[in-house]
Amino acid sequence: MKTLRTGISNARHVTHYSFGFGNRKLLANLLDARRSDENTSVVFFVDHHFEKNETLADQLPVEQEDLLIFVDTTNEPTTEGIDQLVAQVREKCEQIPCALVGVGGGATLDTAKAAANLLTNGGKAEEYQGWDLVKKPGVYKIAIPTISGTGAEATRTCVMTNKRTGLKLGMNSDYTVYDQVILDPDLTATVPRDQYFWTGMDAYIHCIESLAGHYRNAIGDAFSRQTLALCREVFLSDDMQSPENREKLMVASYLGGGAIASSYVGVVHPFSAGLSVVLGAHHCVANCITMRAMEEFYPKEFNEFWSMVDQQQVHIPKGLCSDLQEEKYELLYDSTVIHEKPLTNALGEQFRRILSPSRTKELFQRM
Amino acid sequence: MKTLRTGISNARHVTHYSFGFGNRKLLANLLDARRSDENTSVVFFVDHHFEKNETLADQLPVEQEDLLIFVDTTNEPTTEGIDQLVAQVREKCEQIPCALVGVGGGATLDTAKAAANLLTNGGKAEEYQGWDLVKKPGVYKIAIPTISGTGAEATRTCVMTNKRTGLKLGMNSDYTVYDQVILDPDLTATVPRDQYFWTGMDAYIHCIESLAGHYRNAIGDAFSRQTLALCREVFLSDDMQSPENREKLMVASYLGGGAIASSYVGVVHPFSAGLSVVLGAHHCVANCITMRAMEEFYPKEFNEFWSMVDQQQVHIPKGLCSDLQEEKYELLYDSTVIHEKPLTNALGEQFRRILSPSRTKELFQRM
Repeated sequence: MKTLRTGISNARHVTHYSFGFGNRKLLANLLDARRSDENTSVVFFVDHHFEKNETLADQLPVEQEDLLIFVDTTNEPTTEGIDQLVAQVREKCEQIPCALVGVGGGATLDTAKAAANLLTNGGKAEEYQGWDLVKKPGVYKIAIPTISGTGAEATRTCVMTNKRTGLKLGMNSDYTVYDQVILDPDLTATVPRDQYFWTGMDAYIHCIESLAGHYRNAIGDAFSRQTLALCREVFLSDDMQSPENREKLMVASYLGGGAIASSYVGVVHPFSAGLSVVLGAHHCVANCITMRAMEEFYPKEFNEFWSMVDQQQVHIPKGLCSDLQEEKYELLYDSTVIHEKPLTNALGEQFRRILSPSRTKELFQRM
Repeated sequence: MKTLRTGISNARHVTHYSFGFGNRKLLANLLDARRSDENTSVVFFVDHHFEKNETLADQLPVEQEDLLIFVDTTNEPTTEGIDQLVAQVREKCEQIPCALVGVGGGATLDTAKAAANLLTNGGKAEEYQGWDLVKKPGVYKIAIPTISGTGAEATRTCVMTNKRTGLKLGMNSDYTVYDQVILDPDLTATVPRDQYFWTGMDAYIHCIESLAGHYRNAIGDAFSRQTLALCREVFLSDDMQSPENREKLMVASYLGGGAIASSYVGVVHPFSAGLSVVLGAHHCVANCITMRAMEEFYPKEFNEFWSMVDQQQVHIPKGLCSDLQEEKYELLYDSTVIHEKPLTNALGEQFRRILSPSRTKELFQRM
């Protein structure tokens, strides 16, 4: 296979990262360095899961002038939902906050990224869905992931669905990248097993897609290979949630996010996006469901994926698309083949010849 | 072996990186984005090797108001030499330049880092030798490596020798990290074979030291492992300088620099520093010479290193320390055991019991 140039000419890293058990305790000092006499308020976006689990929320260095918002992640982020959160911040804070902290999984981290951009750039979230539409730096922002796999802590996008237009697209911008990431493997100790697996597999899946693609470069490949090596160690081990494996998966997620900067996904993500847009499945479990139909596209990785499922004895939902109305299959088809760049990356420019409507339906039915 | 915490709490990445054959052509646009009506001048620090090889120097987007300085890298950077270069910039430029570009190997890239810090912070280079002594951001700076291995393009230090005090120590600071790195494997096509190997081995050697150390963490380990995987592919192949291998080694150098942010070196670097300080050997070749005496500390990697030397048919100097005056051996001993942190990392706190003066002399004689 001929390798094509990715066309990605310049990539942005997270500026600072801190890694280690207990390192969430560094947050107070990092925020103090941003607070000034003129501007002292910090906004915390915390996954609503921690509203009940008070241990983490209580540990956050929330001062009197700060605002703590629990983000409802029952559904994935929408442009409208983000606009509402931003309105809430504007109402409660007299000025633009000096820092914004996202604590949670991909949905919460993406929400915080979008809000940081909107607070300084103004306007509505939907105005920035696309590439490089954000015109100035967002509020200084810190990510504290509480689950590993999406790479949201390291990427330049924040995925949002625009319910009005049906568009699922992020604010792809260098300004969307976090200024600081705190990777504290203590925080992933209480993640439920299935969710831990599904989310971790996001890192595995985008890296197998990248390495099988036409658009490649040596630095994206290096990030992807190390991510896969770590995922294999974690998910082929006896205890994927041991402290050591939680460390490794946190690193895999972070490096996997780095891989995204220099590569493209393939067949899994477009199908998974179909499941999310049409049937409301969350991104990570949707990826895993899609893997039920990926044998012919990724034969070796298909086998490896299912051996990891066996090894960890986790549940992957089944039959989501086995018996839908014809209209739904058409919607699934449309929302899959719209992803031209990843499908071209995986199957070449003639990907529609391979993914005909009937073939696509048959693949969805296999899930 | 018990793994100890590195004590490194927060690490800074290079802000932007661009990777690909021909990507040096992006430099003009990146500089144009920094030039303004008020401040338009850029300073280029270019390895003096390119003074004769005009192709590269001619390709640089040097404008009329800019200053191009060829850096003499016959010897490694000294604090005095850096002060002289900074004085030259101050004399020729009316104001602080809007950008600084380093084009060359580790010595040139380190020189540019130090100069960027001094131009905004004032004072002499020796005032900043140490940890976190730089008080404000340096001039915006871009690295364009022309040889791979040192990782200088990615690290937070710039190694300099203070001839007055004998101290070989860099300005360890987040401000020392490059804002932009351009990794263009075209630029390493003309590197002489031996030099290509010696410098490339800097990445290999610091990663084997890191992974064998007591002070470790999962993110440093991940960077080191991927760096080693790439070095093995390059140096165990038939043609270490093929375009594909030059790409890989450029990535290995960059990721190896990233590894340094979260790990420590071991036995090789202290001995190598002795060879540099006492006998004037350049860092990379000194590392390779040191490997002659490393069998008992790194047995597996010792064998692998020498099989790479065989495979690539390169020359590693020998006998540098076989017949010195006793006084020189004493100096070599002193300038080796002064590196307490890496030696503790490798051998534990009682490292002086292992590295007695007579044992150290014997090791140097083996080189």
